[in-house]
Amino acid sequence: MPNIFGKVFTIATWGESHGGGIGVVVDGCPPNLPITEEEIQFELDRRRPGQSIITTQRKETDSVTIVSGVYEGRTLGTPIGMYIPNADQRPEAYAEIKKKFRPSHADYTYLTKFGIRNHEGGGRSSARETAGRVAAGAIAKKILRLAGQVEIRAYVSSIKDIQAPASETLPSLEAVEATAVRCPDPTTAEKMIALIKSARRAGDSVGGVIECRVKNLPTGLGEPVFDRLEADLAKGMLSLPATKGFEIGSGFSGTRLTGSQHNDPFENRRGRIRTSTNRSGGVQGGISNGEDLVFRTAFKPTATILKPQSTVDTEGNETVLRGRGRHDPCVLPRAVPIVEAMTALVLIDHWMRQSAQNRTFRFGD
Amino acid sequence: MPNIFGKVFTIATWGESHGGGIGVVVDGCPPNLPITEEEIQFELDRRRPGQSIITTQRKETDSVTIVSGVYEGRTLGTPIGMYIPNADQRPEAYAEIKKKFRPSHADYTYLTKFGIRNHEGGGRSSARETAGRVAAGAIAKKILRLAGQVEIRAYVSSIKDIQAPASETLPSLEAVEATAVRCPDPTTAEKMIALIKSARRAGDSVGGVIECRVKNLPTGLGEPVFDRLEADLAKGMLSLPATKGFEIGSGFSGTRLTGSQHNDPFENRRGRIRTSTNRSGGVQGGISNGEDLVFRTAFKPTATILKPQSTVDTEGNETVLRGRGRHDPCVLPRAVPIVEAMTALVLIDHWMRQSAQNRTFRFGD
Amino acid sequence: MPNIFGKVFTIATWGESHGGGIGVVVDGCPPNLPITEEEIQFELDRRRPGQSIITTQRKETDSVTIVSGVYEGRTLGTPIGMYIPNADQRPEAYAEIKKKFRPSHADYTYLTKFGIRNHEGGGRSSARETAGRVAAGAIAKKILRLAGQVEIRAYVSSIKDIQAPASETLPSLEAVEATAVRCPDPTTAEKMIALIKSARRAGDSVGGVIECRVKNLPTGLGEPVFDRLEADLAKGMLSLPATKGFEIGSGFSGTRLTGSQHNDPFENRRGRIRTSTNRSGGVQGGISNGEDLVFRTAFKPTATILKPQSTVDTEGNETVLRGRGRHDPCVLPRAVPIVEAMTALVLIDHWMRQSAQNRTFRFGD
Amino acid sequence: MPNIFGKVFTIATWGESHGGGIGVVVDGCPPNLPITEEEIQFELDRRRPGQSIITTQRKETDSVTIVSGVYEGRTLGTPIGMYIPNADQRPEAYAEIKKKFRPSHADYTYLTKFGIRNHEGGGRSSARETAGRVAAGAIAKKILRLAGQVEIRAYVSSIKDIQAPASETLPSLEAVEATAVRCPDPTTAEKMIALIKSARRAGDSVGGVIECRVKNLPTGLGEPVFDRLEADLAKGMLSLPATKGFEIGSGFSGTRLTGSQHNDPFENRRGRIRTSTNRSGGVQGGISNGEDLVFRTAFKPTATILKPQSTVDTEGNETVLRGRGRHDPCVLPRAVPIVEAMTALVLIDHWMRQSAQNRTFRFGD
Repeated sequence: MPNIFGKVFTIATWGESHGGGIGVVVDGCPPNLPITEEEIQFELDRRRPGQSIITTQRKETDSVTIVSGVYEGRTLGTPIGMYIPNADQRPEAYAEIKKKFRPSHADYTYLTKFGIRNHEGGGRSSARETAGRVAAGAIAKKILRLAGQVEIRAYVSSIKDIQAPASETLPSLEAVEATAVRCPDPTTAEKMIALIKSARRAGDSVGGVIECRVKNLPTGLGEPVFDRLEADLAKGMLSLPATKGFEIGSGFSGTRLTGSQHNDPFENRRGRIRTSTNRSGGVQGGISNGEDLVFRTAFKPTATILKPQSTVDTEGNETVLRGRGRHDPCVLPRAVPIVEAMTALVLIDHWMRQSAQNRTFRFGD
Repeated sequence: MPNIFGKVFTIATWGESHGGGIGVVVDGCPPNLPITEEEIQFELDRRRPGQSIITTQRKETDSVTIVSGVYEGRTLGTPIGMYIPNADQRPEAYAEIKKKFRPSHADYTYLTKFGIRNHEGGGRSSARETAGRVAAGAIAKKILRLAGQVEIRAYVSSIKDIQAPASETLPSLEAVEATAVRCPDPTTAEKMIALIKSARRAGDSVGGVIECRVKNLPTGLGEPVFDRLEADLAKGMLSLPATKGFEIGSGFSGTRLTGSQHNDPFENRRGRIRTSTNRSGGVQGGISNGEDLVFRTAFKPTATILKPQSTVDTEGNETVLRGRGRHDPCVLPRAVPIVEAMTALVLIDHWMRQSAQNRTFRFGD
Repeated sequence: MPNIFGKVFTIATWGESHGGGIGVVVDGCPPNLPITEEEIQFELDRRRPGQSIITTQRKETDSVTIVSGVYEGRTLGTPIGMYIPNADQRPEAYAEIKKKFRPSHADYTYLTKFGIRNHEGGGRSSARETAGRVAAGAIAKKILRLAGQVEIRAYVSSIKDIQAPASETLPSLEAVEATAVRCPDPTTAEKMIALIKSARRAGDSVGGVIECRVKNLPTGLGEPVFDRLEADLAKGMLSLPATKGFEIGSGFSGTRLTGSQHNDPFENRRGRIRTSTNRSGGVQGGISNGEDLVFRTAFKPTATILKPQSTVDTEGNETVLRGRGRHDPCVLPRAVPIVEAMTALVLIDHWMRQSAQNRTFRFGD
Repeated sequence: MPNIFGKVFTIATWGESHGGGIGVVVDGCPPNLPITEEEIQFELDRRRPGQSIITTQRKETDSVTIVSGVYEGRTLGTPIGMYIPNADQRPEAYAEIKKKFRPSHADYTYLTKFGIRNHEGGGRSSARETAGRVAAGAIAKKILRLAGQVEIRAYVSSIKDIQAPASETLPSLEAVEATAVRCPDPTTAEKMIALIKSARRAGDSVGGVIECRVKNLPTGLGEPVFDRLEADLAKGMLSLPATKGFEIGSGFSGTRLTGSQHNDPFENRRGRIRTSTNRSGGVQGGISNGEDLVFRTAFKPTATILKPQSTVDTEGNETVLRGRGRHDPCVLPRAVPIVEAMTALVLIDHWMRQSAQNRTFRFGD
């Protein structure tokens, strides 16, 4: 079941960039949740290509239809099927890449793995697949918000070597959405946008880091061993196209501290047990401790560029690939809602699991 | 099923640092594999406490018994039960931490999650649990070696700010095992050992980074979407105690390159399609491409230190925890075989899944 | 993941009898399989309401569209999304049952479970959901046929107390399809049809037993313990609406024999190890032994009848439900392709699992 | 993961009849449950060989040790490892069957499937494996009893053609345990015992049917589609050695009624919605409706008999197997606690799943 994610709140995505469309089945969603297509469309619009001048100019409306599981505005507890038809397909654009493996794309590995591939637009490896996750994530976010005012906020913290100032709290959604690059610091955002535009002009691309913070998360989510909260978040993040790294709390830079510098002392803050610092990033022993979750995901520069590149064709001949047409010089702005969606999917699943094992029965003393 | 890992080659670990012992059930192991307790013990000995002067001085022999699934030296295809009795338990050592939450340990979160905890030695959060994974991983490594000469080699690449020179190939097992710190570069290893000893004397601890390289891995392992090979490796690594980050190939530093600098051109090398560089780290589109797998895992400095620390007791009173007794100033040397074990478990599972979906039936052209 | 079935060849169904439509995602299907919408439609037409005078007269065309996972007539190895839009919805027909629980339907239990239900046409409990299984099963059947000439044949063996003569071999598809009741014995079929017509006239309903035989199944499918082949077949059958029992081989009547009467002696038949009799029904120790699979499923009389029935309304008042409109006096003829589909789904999953564990690696002697 | 059962309350069994022993890991058990080895031993003693004159005379004490997951008499929420060492192994007893396939045993299919088998005592196919399930089931039963006074009672309802009178309520545990055959009707029990003794003397064996009733089960357990409560019970029962059939409520005999005879009318009984009859067997639409669960499982006559039987040896030669030594003329008395254990495992898993999806979040009106 390689296209299924989550153990209790489960999603199955389907669809390629070609063909009828893409979609998702959400299985295990609690009943009676008020949800509308508009709420889901809101998140899809944040992911949609062509939304701003610094993303790909491909036009996709990504209009979602809920085809099952919701009745008179509320979830039924049955699987929620959602469908997003494909549009703007231009198979002729794919003539060259039919026979040439694009460097650092999935063309070669897909063909090796399956013995067949659809060369049109990347098929299943296309970022288009993530629309299904965003649609499912919108439902998960809604539940988290209603159930515990849990807020998930992702934002671009660096593009290439332009780094936003560190933030200690969740930026507002408005601050994130204020600029096309989804970096909440306006001065940095301006520089990032200029850099992305310059990469586009050069036919090149850039990568960067997205940080995500979650507040109001209950304590107790995550499991001691394999299903540590950070392990499932890491899996969720590295399951996104173009990702190369994940870190939580102090992350890689924390390895340069000593234990006495790194440990988070406990304190009693207004009757609640809290940590004075948050180098743990909100998890200890794999389990949420009530502090803000903080983690970062590294996105490589987009593999599609317009510069000529050495490669090999399907018959093994060395050749040159000359990019042409539209390209997306930087995926990070559109990846922000995707990071939030995957985060929401991980959290809701762990919340329901925590409830099943640790809240269903109470045996007192 | 929070203590179960893998979809086809599956392991279930059990056991705490107190009580009868720990163990693992390996479910789905192919039959007819020659395997002995000695081969498994070899890996356990690399993980064992007290093996060198720079690790914890706790004495545990970690003697494994195969209790099922192997008959006359070969696997039966039935579940392999392995059992490692506990030893050297000193409940009296835990008197203080019974009531005080150790900073950056799992004490507080376990109690919050389950409403009960065993305070003796960390219970399930103890690194002792990983012995079960190492035992299972030894079997996975054996299969990978027999089936495709796949070699997995982890090694310490940095401790605090001491960084080993970058390596482009797998170091030999001998080079890794030559020093107590398991860094294959002898000069760096010497500095690392000195640093760890100094941290021990100071009652403090240090962290670092473990790099892992895999060679001879077949192409085609990993799935396009959720179960990308790097996603499952990230989950495996972040499921280890004390980890804070994961990166594959170019990782976080790759975000500072442009696409034209970062992409790996394809070439035809002696009749095989290869990439000229390996910033991808051996995976493209979530699937192995035949190059070496290369990834790194960040380990924080050990939470147990002997310096006094501010904390809170189980009744919410602020207090001071004074560490005493034995402590492990740096977990990385012992984590090296654990990283290898988790890697082997991820790879064998994907290999069997790849076989099931893409090799069971051949429909030709 | 309550709406997901299978471990390696996995399906997720979605959709209710109201709303946009129903569908299925097939995850894990081998690539390169030639498949067309027509092949799938063929099976759906066998399940379709209104196909003959003895089934419900509801008109549904059940037209399937493959929306992903198939490219130029072959599977890609990616998830296959299939979509069957709803038609012929008459919400006004459901006014009475909005407030009254239909006896032996799922109205009461759904409301109790979820706290909400869609009363229109049974929602998720409607047999309409099985169309998704039939579509997925059509793919599984195709693979089984191509890979090993495996043939699955279900047929009605009894309706109420009319019992077809026992068969020792697979009847032909033609013989099964020759009559509206799908009983391959023409004389019995005639009596069954008369009985069903008479039940319809009386506003009543009848049940019966469907037998299923599978030939050319390889040995070795099924697992020793929980996932015995008969256990998964039993689960598959009892997951169908209106089923009350399952038996394999000698079944319940085998309990009246002694061991010496019941055991199947082995013999060497033309160089192949075979059993002289087949009271085992094709499985021994949970694993297929190369003989025909033979099992039977009991279907209760349809719960929807037109006679007045005592019941309770949603406010707890005792009342009378007066059935009206169309009803299906006997589900068995339409259940025949559904039984075949679920059988195919169980078998393909076990075949791929057998391959993964026991064929991926060969360790010789 | 063929040796793993359950989605939220999960068990993994391991062990063969030879070797060190057998055991089980219970993963997902709620914390704080008071449980002792004695409670588990009680159920194991009911399953133990040699307990009465009508079962096998093999002596096994089946002494269980809890090796993890329980601390000071309460579950920790971590995996519970339980271990039952093997005893009374007589490898010399297996000389003949090393080379000859026992009819209607798993010898041939295991060898075919795995290419290797342990011929000593059936290995994994031995009923000995069920001891792990009984140990895990004892925990599940305890939870069900504490949480909702749920009582599970299995009993022998027929042996060969001796049928106990139908019962409409749960017999007491005392009535079941009063006779060696575990049939609560004393007169029938006496006849059954005589029949079993006579089968033993003849070197033959007999089968029969075990009925199981569950009272006080909450409504709402079970899922609409694949994981219907009866589907998972059917799987659980058919996963037991020697089973050939399963039926719930009216079962196979219900197929001989009309809908108007078969439907269970609803009524308001003292303010609670109930059904007047219970041909549904406690489930409607796959979900428990608050009535008693009632289902039956068919067990074939034991395959091991002492009469000579035609068979084939591992080289394909036709030969005769002459049984000798001890044999178990009827497994049903010992299967009673096993049926109860599997039932408890299915119910607890569904209860926790129901809680996770439908009780974790409440969205009101």
